Amino acid sequence: MLTGLVISVDAMGGDAAPDIVINGIEYFLKHEGKGRHARFLIHGDEAQITPLLAKTPQTRERCEIAHTESVIAMDAKPSFAMRRGKGSSMWNAVEAVKTGDAQVAISAGNTGALMAMSKLLLRMKEGVQRPAIAARWPHQDGFGVVLDVGANLECDANQLREFAVLGEAYYRAIFKKEKPSIGLLNVGTEDKKGNAVIQAAHDSLSCSQLGLNYVGFVEGYDISMGNVDVIVTDGFTGNIALKTAEGTARLLVTFITAALQDNIWSKMASILNLPALRRMKKRMDPRTGNGGVFLGLNGLVIKSHGGTDHIGYANALSVALEMADSTYLEEIENNLQTLHDEDGYVGAVET
Amino acid sequence: MLTGLVISVDAMGGDAAPDIVINGIEYFLKHEGKGRHARFLIHGDEAQITPLLAKTPQTRERCEIAHTESVIAMDAKPSFAMRRGKGSSMWNAVEAVKTGDAQVAISAGNTGALMAMSKLLLRMKEGVQRPAIAARWPHQDGFGVVLDVGANLECDANQLREFAVLGEAYYRAIFKKEKPSIGLLNVGTEDKKGNAVIQAAHDSLSCSQLGLNYVGFVEGYDISMGNVDVIVTDGFTGNIALKTAEGTARLLVTFITAALQDNIWSKMASILNLPALRRMKKRMDPRTGNGGVFLGLNGLVIKSHGGTDHIGYANALSVALEMADSTYLEEIENNLQTLHDEDGYVGAVET
Repeated sequence: MLTGLVISVDAMGGDAAPDIVINGIEYFLKHEGKGRHARFLIHGDEAQITPLLAKTPQTRERCEIAHTESVIAMDAKPSFAMRRGKGSSMWNAVEAVKTGDAQVAISAGNTGALMAMSKLLLRMKEGVQRPAIAARWPHQDGFGVVLDVGANLECDANQLREFAVLGEAYYRAIFKKEKPSIGLLNVGTEDKKGNAVIQAAHDSLSCSQLGLNYVGFVEGYDISMGNVDVIVTDGFTGNIALKTAEGTARLLVTFITAALQDNIWSKMASILNLPALRRMKKRMDPRTGNGGVFLGLNGLVIKSHGGTDHIGYANALSVALEMADSTYLEEIENNLQTLHDEDGYVGAVET
Repeated sequence: MLTGLVISVDAMGGDAAPDIVINGIEYFLKHEGKGRHARFLIHGDEAQITPLLAKTPQTRERCEIAHTESVIAMDAKPSFAMRRGKGSSMWNAVEAVKTGDAQVAISAGNTGALMAMSKLLLRMKEGVQRPAIAARWPHQDGFGVVLDVGANLECDANQLREFAVLGEAYYRAIFKKEKPSIGLLNVGTEDKKGNAVIQAAHDSLSCSQLGLNYVGFVEGYDISMGNVDVIVTDGFTGNIALKTAEGTARLLVTFITAALQDNIWSKMASILNLPALRRMKKRMDPRTGNGGVFLGLNGLVIKSHGGTDHIGYANALSVALEMADSTYLEEIENNLQTLHDEDGYVGAVET
């Protein structure tokens, strides 16, 4: 039985699982996680995991394997995962948070299945309509938080307002900013821009007594410019914005690499420039933002990109540890209480 | 009276008009437009434009001023612009295309007003429900075309299919590719992803006999990766994707500049690297993509960003000249004819 802060890991989720998962933990323990107090409850096929642990001594020392042979396929439908998923590595990883054996779960598997299981096992916080996935978005001075990035393709105005409340608690807990600014993603900043849903959400957030630092509409370039802390949008738009930014970053890295290999002078200059360029590449690396957080549940679940490598996975582990170590679950309770008070919401009375 | 290929210019539209407009024409004539055959019919306030022409000899030689004092404000509502816009520089710029005095119109003014006037004056092509704005998107090997990027915030499946047809004609005319590939922007590439509208558009494009090279769903990063030529999406998503990519590009330029100024070695290296870095910066420059094209009208209208500078404006002029010089208007006729045949569309019979 592991003690202390435990991260529950779905070792079988992800395109190159379980290799990148185990190597990701090892990388994490050697870098960002060095000297941190986390332990790992690893769910998956022992026969595949044990040989990997032979080559990852730090992970071996801090983990326990919870064997299971059942795996949720990357292309499984959420409904199938719900019906047949019990006992799979993903299911067990989330269940460990429910039972209290772990403080946070992480998976690089199928997003829809992970969300469905998380909702079923952990349940939504009282009064939350739909959980959201929040992504960290690097900008000049740190990170912004964008939500939703894929859990809810269509949202009504109430859901968007709820995302503002969830995202604000997340930002405050992780980035320790008293009054993070909140913006609603739109095609322009003028009051009359956007569709009916956006307009209704804007009206509701503008008139709200929630005490949010709502700054109104923001546009696509405000995200990377760091002009706003929390960016609220529906899951369709958020997902496309996120992947578009990743594509743009990858393209620019290609351009830079080509420019710096262009001729003998460029190559020499690049060598002189290596440390500075390395730092820059690291900041631009899409893996830095890996680790989507499910917000609105009674418990912490982190989603890693399915196609990431061990370095990206280690980043998602950093997010998991940071969340488990933070005051997020209390912040969210307070925020939701205020939201319910404003709405005159009457929660279920436990008897 | 100007002869040859004439570009009709709204000199008063844009945040820093008419200065950037006139300086943009001059820059164009000295660079991309050098030796080209375009002339300019400039609509706007003669008292403001004449002093600018004193400093822009090439423009002066190739232009004619069509004086008007009325200007459409950057924040005017399209309905107001329609009611009160007659005789404004924007109105007159578009009207010159209708009368045949010019082959293409360009404005950096209010997008909604420009679209409304263009529809009123030029009318939509037979059978087109709504015009779209297409943007060029730089990638590794050239350009992709994304539409719609802001004219239609909500679209049904038929409109998305129509955008595919419009975008394909545009791509073929400008980039001379026989069968450009067409993708539908979505949150994943699997057949079952997306909302009901996207699903219906996908079914319709998949079963279509239009002869389009439809490749199915594409994701945000496929745009910059150049994995597909024409990317179809609604105006809300397209606008946000475009501005998000611009923001990401701007952020990365900041990172690179900082990295290359980091210490004395970096600075020296940067100096050695200047030509290569200049080329890279040019490719990454958001101004390179300036110049949105209105597709689906009986005539050519180009929209420049309102906040661009003279270099960005010159890029939009390149797009205008290229469009006017291309076979686009014929290509679009052929494509729409095929679309009407497939739909059993019966056009209005002229008597």
